[in-house]
Amino acid sequence: MGSLDSNINSAQNQSTIAKFNPLDPEEFRTQAHQMVDFIADYYKNIENYPVLSQVEPGYLRNRLPETAPYRPESFDTIMKDIQNHIVPGMTHWLSPNFFAFFPATVSSAAFVGEMLCTCFNSVGFNWLASPAVTELEMVVMDWLANMLKLPKSFMFSGTGGGVLQGTTSEAILCTLIAARDRKLETLGVHNIGKLVVYGSDQTHSTYTKACKLAGIFPCNIRAIPTSVESNFSLSPVVLRRVIEADMAAGLVPLFLCATVGTTSTTAVDPIGQLAEVANEHKIWLHVDAAYGGSACICPEFRHYLDGIERADSLSLSPHKWLLSYLDCCCMWVREPNVLVKALSTNPEYLRNKRSEYESVVDYKDWQIGTGRRFKSLRLWLVMRSYGIVNLQSHIRSDVRMAKMFEGFIKSDPRFEIVVPRRFSLVCFRFNPVKESEPAYIELLNKKLLDSINSTGRVYITHTIAGGIYMLRFAVGATLTEDRHVIAAWKLIKESADASLRRSYYYTTV
Amino acid sequence: MGSLDSNINSAQNQSTIAKFNPLDPEEFRTQAHQMVDFIADYYKNIENYPVLSQVEPGYLRNRLPETAPYRPESFDTIMKDIQNHIVPGMTHWLSPNFFAFFPATVSSAAFVGEMLCTCFNSVGFNWLASPAVTELEMVVMDWLANMLKLPKSFMFSGTGGGVLQGTTSEAILCTLIAARDRKLETLGVHNIGKLVVYGSDQTHSTYTKACKLAGIFPCNIRAIPTSVESNFSLSPVVLRRVIEADMAAGLVPLFLCATVGTTSTTAVDPIGQLAEVANEHKIWLHVDAAYGGSACICPEFRHYLDGIERADSLSLSPHKWLLSYLDCCCMWVREPNVLVKALSTNPEYLRNKRSEYESVVDYKDWQIGTGRRFKSLRLWLVMRSYGIVNLQSHIRSDVRMAKMFEGFIKSDPRFEIVVPRRFSLVCFRFNPVKESEPAYIELLNKKLLDSINSTGRVYITHTIAGGIYMLRFAVGATLTEDRHVIAAWKLIKESADASLRRSYYYTTV
Repeated sequence: MGSLDSNINSAQNQSTIAKFNPLDPEEFRTQAHQMVDFIADYYKNIENYPVLSQVEPGYLRNRLPETAPYRPESFDTIMKDIQNHIVPGMTHWLSPNFFAFFPATVSSAAFVGEMLCTCFNSVGFNWLASPAVTELEMVVMDWLANMLKLPKSFMFSGTGGGVLQGTTSEAILCTLIAARDRKLETLGVHNIGKLVVYGSDQTHSTYTKACKLAGIFPCNIRAIPTSVESNFSLSPVVLRRVIEADMAAGLVPLFLCATVGTTSTTAVDPIGQLAEVANEHKIWLHVDAAYGGSACICPEFRHYLDGIERADSLSLSPHKWLLSYLDCCCMWVREPNVLVKALSTNPEYLRNKRSEYESVVDYKDWQIGTGRRFKSLRLWLVMRSYGIVNLQSHIRSDVRMAKMFEGFIKSDPRFEIVVPRRFSLVCFRFNPVKESEPAYIELLNKKLLDSINSTGRVYITHTIAGGIYMLRFAVGATLTEDRHVIAAWKLIKESADASLRRSYYYTTV
Repeated sequence: MGSLDSNINSAQNQSTIAKFNPLDPEEFRTQAHQMVDFIADYYKNIENYPVLSQVEPGYLRNRLPETAPYRPESFDTIMKDIQNHIVPGMTHWLSPNFFAFFPATVSSAAFVGEMLCTCFNSVGFNWLASPAVTELEMVVMDWLANMLKLPKSFMFSGTGGGVLQGTTSEAILCTLIAARDRKLETLGVHNIGKLVVYGSDQTHSTYTKACKLAGIFPCNIRAIPTSVESNFSLSPVVLRRVIEADMAAGLVPLFLCATVGTTSTTAVDPIGQLAEVANEHKIWLHVDAAYGGSACICPEFRHYLDGIERADSLSLSPHKWLLSYLDCCCMWVREPNVLVKALSTNPEYLRNKRSEYESVVDYKDWQIGTGRRFKSLRLWLVMRSYGIVNLQSHIRSDVRMAKMFEGFIKSDPRFEIVVPRRFSLVCFRFNPVKESEPAYIELLNKKLLDSINSTGRVYITHTIAGGIYMLRFAVGATLTEDRHVIAAWKLIKESADASLRRSYYYTTV
């Protein structure tokens, strides 16, 4: 009997094996349609979920088996598990009540663009491996450069060019390596320990990480202090002083990362003035405009990029504010050949006549990895589906809502704006009793933040800059409307009232 | 009149602006359903397209406007442009007649998993930012580790752990940095110029690139020669000799990258023996099993990973052979704390109690960038939808078809197998007149390759290893069936016949 059973099992195995077709177009069609409806419903009902997930660490391991199943499971079973086990563990970044970090923005156009990118699954490491992948990316990078009024020196239609990276981290690492290798070519590689890099204490933490990855000595990474008095902007005067001290000590200035819209408080470094210092000392100037750069498609914000023609490279992440879904970081360089020289590889199995004789762009030489997806489709669909007019209006609408929230803060004397608002982030704090100790204010705000987020009704985060603990209210989730901002303010005010009642109770009992 | 017009325009602008909602759930539903049908039809008809795109460089720029549109364009217009302008510029990686490089494999399950990943658009930089993103990735990495029979020292359920990287390049860079910083901690950063790294002349080109990125001096990157006699496998004896010479010269051995399934010829380095040498000299051993690792879920291939328990890290790309779509590279490490120490950042705005007091995994400290997508969904859906049984059968089916092709080659005395087949890649060449000059054989094969690929009916690529020019026939595109392999062989034979007729014509005229 045992052997009969195992014969049957074996026959069943055979039939499972014989039938296995992981890309049957009709099964694909059915499952993908089902998933579209799941997602559309999720977007429709997203407000019903607590924004910040309320699960405890380790929740999922306890709910799932220890090993992958030996036999297939049904699509319906899996979909049920997604609803029951995955959704509760999500912090819903697309909720209209998400005001944390910087929101990650999305759109129908980018979604279908991403579907198409996935569909083709082409690996565009060089031109030949998929001409459309390379050429559409070149077109899209020039389109966005045009929208930002970048100089021709950053465009393929001029003398530069752009590429899609995954994240700002990669953009910074690639440009830094290009700068490093150009400098070491004359200096000699054994002088790597002399190279110094500059940023402010507000520059994104990934900058320091990228510098360390690139072998810059940790002792040669300068994070120049900023202060609340200058809105956390990097001072060209201080920068010059630090550079001169380094040079006097026999060190070699290499790279400066300036920021348009820092992560903590959306501070803006003065590109033009910093470029003057950088150019003077032959320092590679990279401008990280991950968040703030998108606003510069509107004429009223474009001045934040003034002086960009004197920078060497620029990066901007449309997943932050241009509706493109993750991950999408645009990077432009003024001298592509310097980048390519530092990052190119030439294995035999990728050699082809197009790359050798026709000077096509091979994007593998513009990035860390070899393989790459057809990511430009998302941006292309966003730009065409909405047009510049709607993208500008999207930026303005977020800024308008942030202004509204700023007005609420200003209208309540128990609250204060800590840093003037520039884009769609409001940095504020609760400070009901003037002249309180900083430590007390910090504690008060920490408690307020906890009590707000624990409701699950909104999610906001905090930062510390210049030693000041503050709350960050970042408007920009794609589905956010006025009513969400108004409700958030109401919740913040109620939580503040409750915290005052509690503290009154404790001080009087 | 002019002013009336502009009033109307302005009013129209207002109405466009007022109505702009980039994520209307019902518009999303309609467009996404339409895209599903487009993609299902594309998969259904994919054989009708020339595999290798036949466009000329610059084709797309001439067909698209120079700037993004100011006003929105309709979805139908865009879809038509995709069909007319994008599809012709694609090299169709998913075509069943794609035998180039290594195929990039896909499945319905991974597609819907990717849709869901896009849908949530959560940025899982730390645990709190989306608990499910971190926890599912941990589960999935342990599941795959189990399927590969990796030791507990690489699993979260043991003392190690795994993470999803985008590409092997990132996996290598991250582990290399971990190794580098651990070594420099005792050695002092000023000794970076003493660090030496090892690989073979068959190691992926991205390894050299990663070493340069990490600041390893180019003169300290060893590419140890291999030969066709040993099937391009790295010799532990030669490795030991090179290491000892370096140590005698006062250098410090740091890192060894061994490969299971090299890109050129799927050579396999002997992990166990190399580990012995590496362990002896405290060298970090990374195993790049990007392609070959997937086969090790089948018991008959698992021996290629023998000795893995003595390696420090391992990477494997399911987008190559486990149906997961790009980009998906699994990386496991034996000592996560060494990796985290090298790659962690701790900006104030990401600080939270969970990370500080509950020792949750914050994946931003396991990778180059900060932001990350919910990529484990794809693998989770693949494993559950198909089960281990079908994934094994998928590997075996590809290997069986490659064996069949190998048989065709062996059956025709004008062709020869250059390197014994190990997985699903066949390295062969056309060599009709024995004892020909190598340069003549190379020319003959180059011409043969061109004539095959220019038909658009299949796409195959070449390599050079040990000075030998050879053609690569990589079976593994998800839709490939026996009939495609048979037709490809028929085409290759016909092209060879034609080339012989031509060469007969030229030599006799």
